[in-house]
Amino acid sequence: MTDRIYGVADTTFSRVNMGEIAVKTITKEDPEGKIIRYTVPGIKDLPVAAKKLIEEGCDGVITLGWVGKTQLDKYSYLAASIGLITVQLMTSTHVIDVTIHEDETEDEERLRDIAIDRAKKHSINLVKLVRDGRSALTGLAGKGLRQGYENAGQLD
Amino acid sequence: MTDRIYGVADTTFSRVNMGEIAVKTITKEDPEGKIIRYTVPGIKDLPVAAKKLIEEGCDGVITLGWVGKTQLDKYSYLAASIGLITVQLMTSTHVIDVTIHEDETEDEERLRDIAIDRAKKHSINLVKLVRDGRSALTGLAGKGLRQGYENAGQLD
Amino acid sequence: MTDRIYGVADTTFSRVNMGEIAVKTITKEDPEGKIIRYTVPGIKDLPVAAKKLIEEGCDGVITLGWVGKTQLDKYSYLAASIGLITVQLMTSTHVIDVTIHEDETEDEERLRDIAIDRAKKHSINLVKLVRDGRSALTGLAGKGLRQGYENAGQLD
Amino acid sequence: MTDRIYGVADTTFSRVNMGEIAVKTITKEDPEGKIIRYTVPGIKDLPVAAKKLIEEGCDGVITLGWVGKTQLDKYSYLAASIGLITVQLMTSTHVIDVTIHEDETEDEERLRDIAIDRAKKHSINLVKLVRDGRSALTGLAGKGLRQGYENAGQLD
Amino acid sequence: MTDRIYGVADTTFSRVNMGEIAVKTITKEDPEGKIIRYTVPGIKDLPVAAKKLIEEGCDGVITLGWVGKTQLDKYSYLAASIGLITVQLMTSTHVIDVTIHEDETEDEERLRDIAIDRAKKHSINLVKLVRDGRSALTGLAGKGLRQGYENAGQLD
Repeated sequence: MTDRIYGVADTTFSRVNMGEIAVKTITKEDPEGKIIRYTVPGIKDLPVAAKKLIEEGCDGVITLGWVGKTQLDKYSYLAASIGLITVQLMTSTHVIDVTIHEDETEDEERLRDIAIDRAKKHSINLVKLVRDGRSALTGLAGKGLRQGYENAGQLD
Repeated sequence: MTDRIYGVADTTFSRVNMGEIAVKTITKEDPEGKIIRYTVPGIKDLPVAAKKLIEEGCDGVITLGWVGKTQLDKYSYLAASIGLITVQLMTSTHVIDVTIHEDETEDEERLRDIAIDRAKKHSINLVKLVRDGRSALTGLAGKGLRQGYENAGQLD
Repeated sequence: MTDRIYGVADTTFSRVNMGEIAVKTITKEDPEGKIIRYTVPGIKDLPVAAKKLIEEGCDGVITLGWVGKTQLDKYSYLAASIGLITVQLMTSTHVIDVTIHEDETEDEERLRDIAIDRAKKHSINLVKLVRDGRSALTGLAGKGLRQGYENAGQLD
Repeated sequence: MTDRIYGVADTTFSRVNMGEIAVKTITKEDPEGKIIRYTVPGIKDLPVAAKKLIEEGCDGVITLGWVGKTQLDKYSYLAASIGLITVQLMTSTHVIDVTIHEDETEDEERLRDIAIDRAKKHSINLVKLVRDGRSALTGLAGKGLRQGYENAGQLD
Repeated sequence: MTDRIYGVADTTFSRVNMGEIAVKTITKEDPEGKIIRYTVPGIKDLPVAAKKLIEEGCDGVITLGWVGKTQLDKYSYLAASIGLITVQLMTSTHVIDVTIHEDETEDEERLRDIAIDRAKKHSINLVKLVRDGRSALTGLAGKGLRQGYENAGQLD
């Protein structure tokens, strides 16, 4: 089997270098995997970056977006989210979407920690889905897992 | 006729193992049917999971999503909903969308019951549509059926 | 010329049997037309039902949706509306969308009357567009017609 | 060169006969152009009407929509707007979207004047783009032009 | 290698001639590049303009939109944003979206300065992506860059 190729798409708008975190985490998680990175200005540029990465051969992509505080930023988030889902449907390929919203917390240090945790955990999710397939996460189904925050846990 | 294949797509974000409930309900409702399950991190990953399940041969899919309490979660819900409808239009295949919103009730036990009821009832809906076709639910048309809550009932 | 085929897609969520009203109205309006009916659980299932009806040969479709009172129901309405427009663009076929919002009025009898009126009037609109073509409604252009309510009337 | 064909799509929901205004304005602006008109019930029917007009040979289309006052009307506006943009992308053809919102003003006479002005000005825009091409409006770029209202003017 | 072709799409609705600024900035940044400009009435016309520019051979496009103050303008922004992302996915080509919201500031002089700065910086971003490729901005990833405002800076 060919080694897996992972795409990492990040932005210059982001205030944390989540692309680097994703590259390191994927490398650690799947040392035989190859990684291609694509940096764009902001979240609305991420869908086409993901599509181009898939066209270059990536078996899965992680996008790392950062969203401002205003209502307009939220509409941009919605448009980008629709676009990222569309890419996946056009290519039948996973694009795991990591998004940090600048208003998740007032505390900048906490915000950085959220970004790092979310980027790491979703990088691992991507490797599991790409390398191990559709049952890789089934043991964790319904467990209330969270990225960037503590797990919410299972209700039943 | 070939036996039917059902797809079940669920998430690790969910706080109830609705995927398991769907598998059990479909198995009981259509014992000759085959089931393929796909677990992803969150709701925005469900559309591509549904598409891949259909590409693997599923005649219909049920997705089981869990949505947080913030406005951003609601935008994610909107993007995912648009994506799930798009999958159906691309493939002319039903993808029944079960969604639980964490703010439907403050009572966690009640929330779990809603999730179980909704997952069960929609699993049965999926079997009826896939196995019995477009008239299977016509006897119930306009009856104000609800999933997760008591039926609202018919006005006329 | 072949007789026309009309599609009627309705839901079990609806509290009024609008599908039946549509079938009766279309039959009366175009007695030579054939009708195919498709019943699904809720509004987010209507777009694929409409697409499948068109693939079965329908020259036009009417969908009859019922939407709850919460903001989440409204997001579902938005997603379904985008989906219904997408079906039309994929097939170049009219899908007339009848939607009743449960919060249009507090009065349940009034709500039922709105549903009946809207379903009837749009069924007639569908027949006119399918049977008589793009000029059939031009004599009424700009007249402020309403379905479910009294006509608003023309301003000029 | 073949004479140009313009599409005009309007609604019976509108309270001003903007379709007629568009037909007259286009005829005056490009007397050699041919016009095809398509009347539908409401704004959500406009995207497919525009697509069918383009399929009938139109080189460009103007749609004339009227939107009610409620939040639900605004979601319908959003869905229709996405649809109208999608038509353009599917066909690489301009569809100029004239929309009147019933809550732009309380004064019905003023509302009628807005509708007339907007329909006229955008009809001229359509002719310029279809007949004269991508540079036709460049002399007016950044000039703060408005339709239905006085021009806002240039800031620099 | 063939010289690059850049597309510039702007509007007559805008109150600043951002198209001209983009043309000048791209010319300065990549003197061997060719530029094609397309002017349309408003933001909802930008997606098809971008698509047509790409069909004429552009390797990348910058769109320069201006959005009014009302909630309806914001829905138009959302629809246009989804359309601009769709164009990129249909063509696998970058379309950098510069948008000025008239309510970003009450001060018209400040608003003009925001427009100029944003148009310039994103024109440079476009050249970097088109000419230098997916790694051109990676050195700036996570740096909290802003266009129209001061950079927010990196948190880690």
